[in-house]
Amino acid sequence: METIDTLISARWIIPVEPDETVLADHSVAIRDGKIVQVLPTAAAADTYEPTETTELSDHALIPGLVNAHTHAAMSLFRGLADDLPLMDWLNNHIWPAEGKWMNDEFVRDGTELAIAEMLKGGTTCFSDMYFFPEETARVCSGAGMRAVVGLIVIDFPTVWAQTAEEYLRKGLQLHDELRNNELITTAFAPHAPYTVSDGTLQKIRTMNNELNLPVHIHLHETVHEVDEAVSKTGQRPLERIASLDLVNPNLVAVHMTTLLPGEIGPLAHAGVNVVHCPQSNMKLASGFCPVNAMMQAGVNVALGTDGAASNNDLDMLDEMRTAALLAKAVANDATAVPAHSALRMATLNGARALGLDDQIGSLEPGKSADIAAIDLSSIGTQPIYDPISQIVYSAGGHQVTDVWIAGKQLLKNRQLATLDEQAILQKAGEWRDRIQAADSGA
Amino acid sequence: METIDTLISARWIIPVEPDETVLADHSVAIRDGKIVQVLPTAAAADTYEPTETTELSDHALIPGLVNAHTHAAMSLFRGLADDLPLMDWLNNHIWPAEGKWMNDEFVRDGTELAIAEMLKGGTTCFSDMYFFPEETARVCSGAGMRAVVGLIVIDFPTVWAQTAEEYLRKGLQLHDELRNNELITTAFAPHAPYTVSDGTLQKIRTMNNELNLPVHIHLHETVHEVDEAVSKTGQRPLERIASLDLVNPNLVAVHMTTLLPGEIGPLAHAGVNVVHCPQSNMKLASGFCPVNAMMQAGVNVALGTDGAASNNDLDMLDEMRTAALLAKAVANDATAVPAHSALRMATLNGARALGLDDQIGSLEPGKSADIAAIDLSSIGTQPIYDPISQIVYSAGGHQVTDVWIAGKQLLKNRQLATLDEQAILQKAGEWRDRIQAADSGA
Repeated sequence: METIDTLISARWIIPVEPDETVLADHSVAIRDGKIVQVLPTAAAADTYEPTETTELSDHALIPGLVNAHTHAAMSLFRGLADDLPLMDWLNNHIWPAEGKWMNDEFVRDGTELAIAEMLKGGTTCFSDMYFFPEETARVCSGAGMRAVVGLIVIDFPTVWAQTAEEYLRKGLQLHDELRNNELITTAFAPHAPYTVSDGTLQKIRTMNNELNLPVHIHLHETVHEVDEAVSKTGQRPLERIASLDLVNPNLVAVHMTTLLPGEIGPLAHAGVNVVHCPQSNMKLASGFCPVNAMMQAGVNVALGTDGAASNNDLDMLDEMRTAALLAKAVANDATAVPAHSALRMATLNGARALGLDDQIGSLEPGKSADIAAIDLSSIGTQPIYDPISQIVYSAGGHQVTDVWIAGKQLLKNRQLATLDEQAILQKAGEWRDRIQAADSGA
Repeated sequence: METIDTLISARWIIPVEPDETVLADHSVAIRDGKIVQVLPTAAAADTYEPTETTELSDHALIPGLVNAHTHAAMSLFRGLADDLPLMDWLNNHIWPAEGKWMNDEFVRDGTELAIAEMLKGGTTCFSDMYFFPEETARVCSGAGMRAVVGLIVIDFPTVWAQTAEEYLRKGLQLHDELRNNELITTAFAPHAPYTVSDGTLQKIRTMNNELNLPVHIHLHETVHEVDEAVSKTGQRPLERIASLDLVNPNLVAVHMTTLLPGEIGPLAHAGVNVVHCPQSNMKLASGFCPVNAMMQAGVNVALGTDGAASNNDLDMLDEMRTAALLAKAVANDATAVPAHSALRMATLNGARALGLDDQIGSLEPGKSADIAAIDLSSIGTQPIYDPISQIVYSAGGHQVTDVWIAGKQLLKNRQLATLDEQAILQKAGEWRDRIQAADSGA
């Protein structure tokens, strides 16, 4: 008998790798935060002596979900300004609100709210782009949350930094501080082609020769962005990013709604990662991302919620469903992005985009024990012919009951283990009161 | 002090009529199953002496949701055959499965499963199209559920009826039996132009001169349907239905994904009702319904989930969100179908489509007390700037805690009052075992 820390037994385990696999009545053995083995529950009893055991008889275990693009702290703006076009929403609502309210405390409280929501919905890793990234990292460390913190760069001054140089300097300092952090890594996060100059992008490219980080950027979010770029620079944004030598496997291109058919093949060839944010794209009428065409061409397509101000939630189960449904509608093909592909987008493809696929994204021996358990016994997910279908097309984030990150249980029977939910809700209410009072007074 | 049966006090009441209204700290007074008044909670204490009082301090009350198109019993096929095109899904999976399994017991058990899911998600009325409608009606009566039961007609034999004449005869018999039922009404439900002959549609038209029922039909679900009709008959299905004098305020046209711009104005002029089923349309890659253009033109657009075999749930909150998001993407306009319009589609517009807008669809004095309470305190719906935004863009069906139909409480703190949830789940599992065993044996 081999000693392990934890044995989780479940009705089904969906390891994602191999693809389309559902293991009935299996268990995950965990030691030192890593998966030792996935094996039939009947065999586990004869093999392992666990310190702790969890039995989940109505549940499916999946790899923890990877939210590959969000702005966590913006959860405090959830529902502040809806039903508006992107540039109106940004110029007249979000950016002024950020100018007024955003500071280290806002980022701390907003990120805690976001992490609480993400953990309760089965997300175990998120890729963030926001100001005060050191606060984001601190909150994640405190909660035991895995994250890729974006070192944001934008060519206009905020309370966090005044110039591109200052953004980069602060970002690199944070990168150094996080060098030995096992849960939190960093990415360069130039905001978008229309807010970051060639010079700054060139600096990032040069620094990345050494650092080899993901480069997380909004790209081709709207037709307007592309048209304006062409009229100002003569180049489509993707063309410009390519001319700056940033189109490579480190690129994490978010949105990509306005692509020419001829642009897709080269993306696959260059090993670019795309993050699809279907609900945000729809809500802001940003256009359609050709997800099926990209996946057919071999592009690695991951999934993100975007910020809660344009979604308006961080529910990756909901996002998977929308991605699977929207891809069919856009491709005019009901076989596009079947359920197992949507689950892969939300797990292994996200891990790969973030350079973490050797550690997370599937339930395989040697990988970190980042796991979510989904209770499929409720009336809206019954009866069950195929648990993967049920997870993607019927289940909601509220059916997630238990979550582990690196073997540590952060959600236990729907209760957060490392965060104070009541205090988080209290603070969210206080921010709302302040922000709303100022808005009505304006 | 006036005696009433029930007083429900809530943090917010969203009556839907008047539109865009949020009443903070209000109460609904109910007597004999009808709404007497909606008034400030502070004033209610001085006005009414209720037999029963419910206080919902974190909740929004909305009119019970109206699911204007579903096939309730098909919930037993949820997830049986996913990621397939419509005609493959129908011809090779759903119709054979129905041929093998569908009978009165299947319809009873499937409809109970569906009603349980709908009630738990805030739906208080549904418009159904399925075989054995007398069983659907019986289950609804037993549960206290409001429904418009479709008198299905289809030009091929099933275990319920052999010929169009038999379908119609059985349907009319059911209509007669339900004449004095206060909760359950009927609609003619010819399945689709491609499955019902001109002669049968003419009979329905003639009978409806007297009965004046809604005529619930799948119409322009896919490009394939329209193209095939043109090549077979020389007419687009809508044109044919119009030539049979069925394009009038009784028409409840479901899907309507393939419309020419010139077809929209006449629909509005004729007073036609359209039921939009966004998730089903996306899942089956059926095409895009021009929701925003129709609403701008004045067409009454309601909302339906379709059956759980093509959705795969009956969650109208989820469907509202998808409708609001998809309409923006299709119209390329982020201001299309704002949150309050989506809520209206799912309530008052549905009631109007079903000819029930004098009774349900808004919280107004004199209307039936069909009400759903949504708990907005959970972390994914906080903070709250605008409760309507939160309901449409962030909340899920699981946040519905309490439901009343005609003043009777059918869901109390998430527990079903008139249905046995465990027995329903048990039966769903038994059907799954039988159906799956036969499938794997085949």
